[in-house]
Amino acid sequence: TPGGCPVHWSVALGKSPAHFKHRLSIRSAAATAAAVPQAKMRRQNIRTLALIVVTFTYLLVGAVIFDVIESGHEIEARQIYLEEEQHWKTLFNISDEIFENITDLVLKMKPYKASSEQWKFYGAFYFSTTLITTIGYGHSTPKTRTGKVVCMLYSLVGIPLCIVMFQSIGERLNALITFILRSLKRLFRCKNTDVSQTNLIVVSINIGTLVLAAGAALFSHYESWNYLDSVYYCFITLTTVGFGDMVALQKNDQLKNRPDYVLFSLVFIMAGLTVVSSAMNLMVLRFLTMNTEDVRREELEQAAAAREAIRLEGDVINANGSVLLAMQARTDAESAVTTPEELEAASKPAPTGSDCLASDCWCCLRRYRQSRLRRQ
Amino acid sequence: TPGGCPVHWSVALGKSPAHFKHRLSIRSAAATAAAVPQAKMRRQNIRTLALIVVTFTYLLVGAVIFDVIESGHEIEARQIYLEEEQHWKTLFNISDEIFENITDLVLKMKPYKASSEQWKFYGAFYFSTTLITTIGYGHSTPKTRTGKVVCMLYSLVGIPLCIVMFQSIGERLNALITFILRSLKRLFRCKNTDVSQTNLIVVSINIGTLVLAAGAALFSHYESWNYLDSVYYCFITLTTVGFGDMVALQKNDQLKNRPDYVLFSLVFIMAGLTVVSSAMNLMVLRFLTMNTEDVRREELEQAAAAREAIRLEGDVINANGSVLLAMQARTDAESAVTTPEELEAASKPAPTGSDCLASDCWCCLRRYRQSRLRRQ
Repeated sequence: TPGGCPVHWSVALGKSPAHFKHRLSIRSAAATAAAVPQAKMRRQNIRTLALIVVTFTYLLVGAVIFDVIESGHEIEARQIYLEEEQHWKTLFNISDEIFENITDLVLKMKPYKASSEQWKFYGAFYFSTTLITTIGYGHSTPKTRTGKVVCMLYSLVGIPLCIVMFQSIGERLNALITFILRSLKRLFRCKNTDVSQTNLIVVSINIGTLVLAAGAALFSHYESWNYLDSVYYCFITLTTVGFGDMVALQKNDQLKNRPDYVLFSLVFIMAGLTVVSSAMNLMVLRFLTMNTEDVRREELEQAAAAREAIRLEGDVINANGSVLLAMQARTDAESAVTTPEELEAASKPAPTGSDCLASDCWCCLRRYRQSRLRRQ
Repeated sequence: TPGGCPVHWSVALGKSPAHFKHRLSIRSAAATAAAVPQAKMRRQNIRTLALIVVTFTYLLVGAVIFDVIESGHEIEARQIYLEEEQHWKTLFNISDEIFENITDLVLKMKPYKASSEQWKFYGAFYFSTTLITTIGYGHSTPKTRTGKVVCMLYSLVGIPLCIVMFQSIGERLNALITFILRSLKRLFRCKNTDVSQTNLIVVSINIGTLVLAAGAALFSHYESWNYLDSVYYCFITLTTVGFGDMVALQKNDQLKNRPDYVLFSLVFIMAGLTVVSSAMNLMVLRFLTMNTEDVRREELEQAAAAREAIRLEGDVINANGSVLLAMQARTDAESAVTTPEELEAASKPAPTGSDCLASDCWCCLRRYRQSRLRRQ
């Protein structure tokens, strides 16, 4: 126990200068151990603060960019709108107030106009899908009080369920890709048959792009959208942004008349979100586990400091006999488990490979065990 | 190495029955080690399949529920809409075709009508926020081709950045809650000052509910929505569903005239998403790490099997002298590290506590190290 050190240190007084040097290094190790929690707080808080600053800067930049691109068009479009409105008002002699009423009516009834059955089984299924995947186009939304309450309760369970499912499928997909890549590398007799995280990310991004491009082509066909609009729709859907400015299945009673297209749309959403999940998983997880890695590294540092303390106890007791000297030697050998190289290794990202994707913690554990096995 | 076993086994022939029994247990351990990858594939695939089945069942149930609740209202509303439309058409003598044109105009120009500057700085900032948080109300969306392309590129960086930021703040928030709870428990001299994951989830849900209720009250005040609608708006926003059927900052040029309200709305979104992230983090992460835990447990099982093999080697060599017997004894003591209890512990969720939130892997490492320290 580091707390017991001072007693032993006082016993150790009057030893050779070499011992004092040893003791000094121990003291610094103990000091490091005490300083670690503070350093950890600082490092993690700084990282969080940096992320906040970066995100808000990114939002500021975005605001400027979209202002430049869209605000000119907005002014023009508004002008055209006002002129056209005035044209209709004059033509049919409609007062401002009445035109406002007509506008309200049109906006409220848009979903009922789009399809005769937004809420019959297929439509309700489509709505449920956009709800628990958090896409939320808003093409049809609950209008009754009961509907709104049930909608909240339903998503309270559905959204976590969906996240877990996509992560789970995404993880299986990554495992499958790893297996295929490794098999291919073996087939072509590559020297290094390991599948790196970079390999996986590249493959994931390619699959994602493929799903997007193919989906866009099909939606473009079914909805008569131009290809860029169709890509934009697919992108906005698969990122779960779901603006709802373009929504599939809203023309010609498709929800009722085109079950094949309904099925394709739902499969596209599910398959696409899985691919995006698995790619996002790979890219984002490294950042998410940073703090955990910090904690683990500090744990190793503290363990190293604790071992130094044990070694000191060994030194002190060793004055009594040679049997204890041997024990001290063994303690030294054990304490070598946390060498500077191991600390270094712990502070680095995990080794690459399929098993290290979800979390590299167990890899660290394995490495540690292997090094122990080797030493025996 | 397990591969070298048969040679040693043949040497071991002709030993006492006790030795044979030992050998049999070893053989079963080695067999387990070989069977593990298959079992792992099966277990993880079954879990994924189960999640898919549960999710689709949940969607079916949702479809039925929303059909029952909303489809009656839909038929009525559609009827009312058609009647009112007919009323205006007859009153002003508007043809079907022309009314269709007016409808198109009203729908296209809705965002320009709602506010005079959806795309001036504040509005563009608001849009960027709803984009990278994946809320995507769709109250205003890019209309130009450039705008759509930039929107996709912008969110390609922005969405991962946002996820990482919310996770990071959420993690810090959980650490803060843990610190406060522990301090409170010490203050009231509780026997057990540990902060369990359940404690944290309860506190997170309470904070989340508080943010939602307070936000809803303020939006209800600013937007003149009734309280249920306001709660529904906040809920749909903080889950990032963002239907867009109700959107804040869309009346009376609030984006231009009410900078205080704009600031509150953005702070609400950011703070709310952080709280939801941290609560979601706690609830979902257990499931997300399941497969990782499987892999780790199998790793431990394999290590245990490997150690059994080493013990066998010890047995065989021990026929040569007593010094090696002692070595065997030591090997036995070492192999006790992977006892059935440890395997059991590894298969269970991590011990509770603030440090165990992000990942419990390092806890397992710590436990392992502590048990080793104790044995020394």
